[in-house]
Amino acid sequence: MCQDAIRPAGPNVRALVEYDGSGFLGFQKQPSGRTVQGELEKALRGLTGRPVRVIGAGRTDAGVHATGQVVNFRPGPELPLERLASALDRALPADIAVRSVERADDTFHARYDAKWRTYEYTIRNAPVRRALEWRFVWHVPQLLDVSEMRLAAGALIGTHHFGAFGTPERGRSAVREMLRAEVLADGEIVLIRLTANAFLRHMARGIVGALVEVGLRRTAPDGLARALDSDADHPLFPMAPPQGLCLVEVEY
Amino acid sequence: MCQDAIRPAGPNVRALVEYDGSGFLGFQKQPSGRTVQGELEKALRGLTGRPVRVIGAGRTDAGVHATGQVVNFRPGPELPLERLASALDRALPADIAVRSVERADDTFHARYDAKWRTYEYTIRNAPVRRALEWRFVWHVPQLLDVSEMRLAAGALIGTHHFGAFGTPERGRSAVREMLRAEVLADGEIVLIRLTANAFLRHMARGIVGALVEVGLRRTAPDGLARALDSDADHPLFPMAPPQGLCLVEVEY
Repeated sequence: MCQDAIRPAGPNVRALVEYDGSGFLGFQKQPSGRTVQGELEKALRGLTGRPVRVIGAGRTDAGVHATGQVVNFRPGPELPLERLASALDRALPADIAVRSVERADDTFHARYDAKWRTYEYTIRNAPVRRALEWRFVWHVPQLLDVSEMRLAAGALIGTHHFGAFGTPERGRSAVREMLRAEVLADGEIVLIRLTANAFLRHMARGIVGALVEVGLRRTAPDGLARALDSDADHPLFPMAPPQGLCLVEVEY
Repeated sequence: MCQDAIRPAGPNVRALVEYDGSGFLGFQKQPSGRTVQGELEKALRGLTGRPVRVIGAGRTDAGVHATGQVVNFRPGPELPLERLASALDRALPADIAVRSVERADDTFHARYDAKWRTYEYTIRNAPVRRALEWRFVWHVPQLLDVSEMRLAAGALIGTHHFGAFGTPERGRSAVREMLRAEVLADGEIVLIRLTANAFLRHMARGIVGALVEVGLRRTAPDGLARALDSDADHPLFPMAPPQGLCLVEVEY
């Protein structure tokens, strides 16, 4: 505490971060094991010589990737901003990259100030598996009915109780606002893009799992609307595996 | 030997194989450690109950990928060809996939019968590193002069002694025929495509390393032509790292 008063924490920095989630237990620091937050804080400690707390916009799960994660931190006054990006680039492991850094308002908070978060989920819908993409794509061999999936996705738009798709923090609300829920098809690839003000734990994967149930005709397209109306507080559909999911954008 | 006479090895099968090389010591089986050949033979042994030898067209190094590796093997008469692809798909780990199988001529040999092998090497030429692709791309931050690289690549076409770029097997010739050596640029991506009748050990990475030296203006474009004329029997240029390389096609 005294040290903080003597050495000011310096400017607030906002950074755009990309990572391959397959080697991490997730974004958020854990008592043990490799995490994105942990690696960023380790690199910053190495560069500044003191503990630096990193705040992220989205707490992605183990195996989930990001091309558009936003973080903020106060690296202290010693390290000029113009050298920070390249110094961090050299200090970080190959599976994390800082795409840009900029000076942020002193009050900027990557998590609390985020207005919209966008996740993309990639499915290869083809009989034959591809090996190069196994860390980044969910392979679904049976033919998906994309029109039915689009129909079902429409019901997600708006403000709903999403307890049937994900888990809120203990004692907190499961109500979220979904701005966009698109199902795009391009050859064998089916891409699901979801934009919401915030996501419950496992919510993006829960929605993708439900949409795939619809695409496989195991659930009728109105199954999602009924799940939203049910006020369920536990997952009603199988959850999609983590590797297809990527946090692509955070808007403020 | 007697067993072979009693139980015929059955039809000769040709398969198209894709793999993410980052989890392997390379294609070729080693006394210990994970290899592509080893995993294929393990899966076939599990399916057929007997040892099956797998022959591959290209012996890729550790960390090198393939989308177009060709192999042949004799799985025995018990397993019908129409069930082989799906049975192998289920038996193989996520980082190897069999894209297709077909009955081959009895004399077909994936390695000896190959006429042309094509490798592609992917470079991201941009100041900022990308984390999602670290297993598949070589990041070169300094600007590459692609025109100079193209000029240099032209000298590779034809039949040459490639001892300055790779290592022949002990006592064997270093002469190979290069059919195509292209340097393609698309935004930040520089793709080098090489087609030759065969490649010496490390030859593709040696050529890419030399072309990057030219692109960085550390070597003049005619440096490759001079290296080919030099009859060198050891690498004259730094070797490109393995992860950018992929065996994309084998022609017969």
